[in-house]
Amino acid sequence: MTENLSTLSPAEARARFRAGLVRPTSGISAGYAQANLIIVPAPHAFDLLLFAQRNPQPMPLLGVLDAGQVTSGLLAGGDIRTDVPRYVVYEDGMPVAEPTEITDWWREDLVTFIVGCSFTFEAALVAGGVPVAHQQQGVNVPMYRTSTRCAPAGTLSGPLVVSMRPVPASQVADAVRITSRYPAVHGAPVHVGAPHELGITDLSRPDFGDPVEIPAGHIPVFWACGVTPQAAVMESRPPLAIGHAPGHMLITDARDSDYLVP
Amino acid sequence: MTENLSTLSPAEARARFRAGLVRPTSGISAGYAQANLIIVPAPHAFDLLLFAQRNPQPMPLLGVLDAGQVTSGLLAGGDIRTDVPRYVVYEDGMPVAEPTEITDWWREDLVTFIVGCSFTFEAALVAGGVPVAHQQQGVNVPMYRTSTRCAPAGTLSGPLVVSMRPVPASQVADAVRITSRYPAVHGAPVHVGAPHELGITDLSRPDFGDPVEIPAGHIPVFWACGVTPQAAVMESRPPLAIGHAPGHMLITDARDSDYLVP
Repeated sequence: MTENLSTLSPAEARARFRAGLVRPTSGISAGYAQANLIIVPAPHAFDLLLFAQRNPQPMPLLGVLDAGQVTSGLLAGGDIRTDVPRYVVYEDGMPVAEPTEITDWWREDLVTFIVGCSFTFEAALVAGGVPVAHQQQGVNVPMYRTSTRCAPAGTLSGPLVVSMRPVPASQVADAVRITSRYPAVHGAPVHVGAPHELGITDLSRPDFGDPVEIPAGHIPVFWACGVTPQAAVMESRPPLAIGHAPGHMLITDARDSDYLVP
Repeated sequence: MTENLSTLSPAEARARFRAGLVRPTSGISAGYAQANLIIVPAPHAFDLLLFAQRNPQPMPLLGVLDAGQVTSGLLAGGDIRTDVPRYVVYEDGMPVAEPTEITDWWREDLVTFIVGCSFTFEAALVAGGVPVAHQQQGVNVPMYRTSTRCAPAGTLSGPLVVSMRPVPASQVADAVRITSRYPAVHGAPVHVGAPHELGITDLSRPDFGDPVEIPAGHIPVFWACGVTPQAAVMESRPPLAIGHAPGHMLITDARDSDYLVP
């Protein structure tokens, strides 16, 4: 990265992406909440909303737009079809394109779900002295499909997807306490250590994102991940669905601190 | 155990011990706080008080009696010399006796420190659905000397002692959150996983208490332990010191819930 984009306002960042910038969003518009995206046609929206209600830890909803609506208070003046740096389009559960805008796929019956992202609590972890390895190593957070099943909802079912951050054994308690205060962005870890209990056999081969090195004395800590609805789409095969490309998030106007509970 | 002692009042339990009952106190007077004990002559009391001030996680003070004082509001009508089921007497840092009362050793210059015990949060763990393995296995909690040094205070120095409870990987976050709310009884874990980072090479050989089996998928979680001041006594060798025998605690009139913070 040659330019420091951390001080861009969310609106400025979205304008850059709209104008053609393509890159992961980690570190952009520091202090503002980034979000996962999942978009489905209206006939599938009830199932997805119910899936979120039944699986709030992997799919905490920050906002749901009306059918056909392309902007909201979370992206004031923005356009959900152009303002994310990269998307993934699924047809019958298969990824068919990774465009940088989805204008060509847009339909008036599409319903957009904006889902909390654990990037929001990473600043709090760093502020609390807990190192965030994938930031230090300059890569995307590793994400894994697990053998844990989400609660199904209508036509939708799928595995829990988790993100993993290695944490020094002496700071796991800090990491739990800090992230517990952000339930809207996945909250406390769902698992600490024992990746095989989640059906993860090789931490060096994540299903999404990049592998990170686990330093000696660090414990792998797992948080529910907002890619979970995309995994449900891949398994449940609705005719059309659109998500963000992993690591290429929607930058919202909400501050990270908006999602902090006492 | 043939008799259910969980419903005894603390005063009744202390009376039983005073009358000669000798057994570990786990499960007795449920809902009331049990405490560690450490007693030193007045010339050493300042160092021990300073040691507590500098090491609040292993040595959270519930009360300090005046020199020669043998009772307090924490053990109304009781006698600190007789009401603990078993004691350990140290001379020059060496354990020389494990009597069931310390009347023969009592001096008017002895100062009693009553120290929070992690047994207090175990009921909250169980109520929160987190299994407590040593209770299920019917043994005393395992405790370990670590390679982590306490902050020294005057003539007193020593290692951090920790207690260990294996926790299912999916419930480590719950265990952290629940115990964080009890700072007066050691609070959140000091370490999760990676026992070698604490200098613990063999979990099956605790320095105090009993070994527990670590079920598959469980992570060893370590809390600071109130035996720490006894380890400091063993290392620093004051002429006289008296503690409780591990697992044989003082049952106080304070309720577990008295030590709960929001």
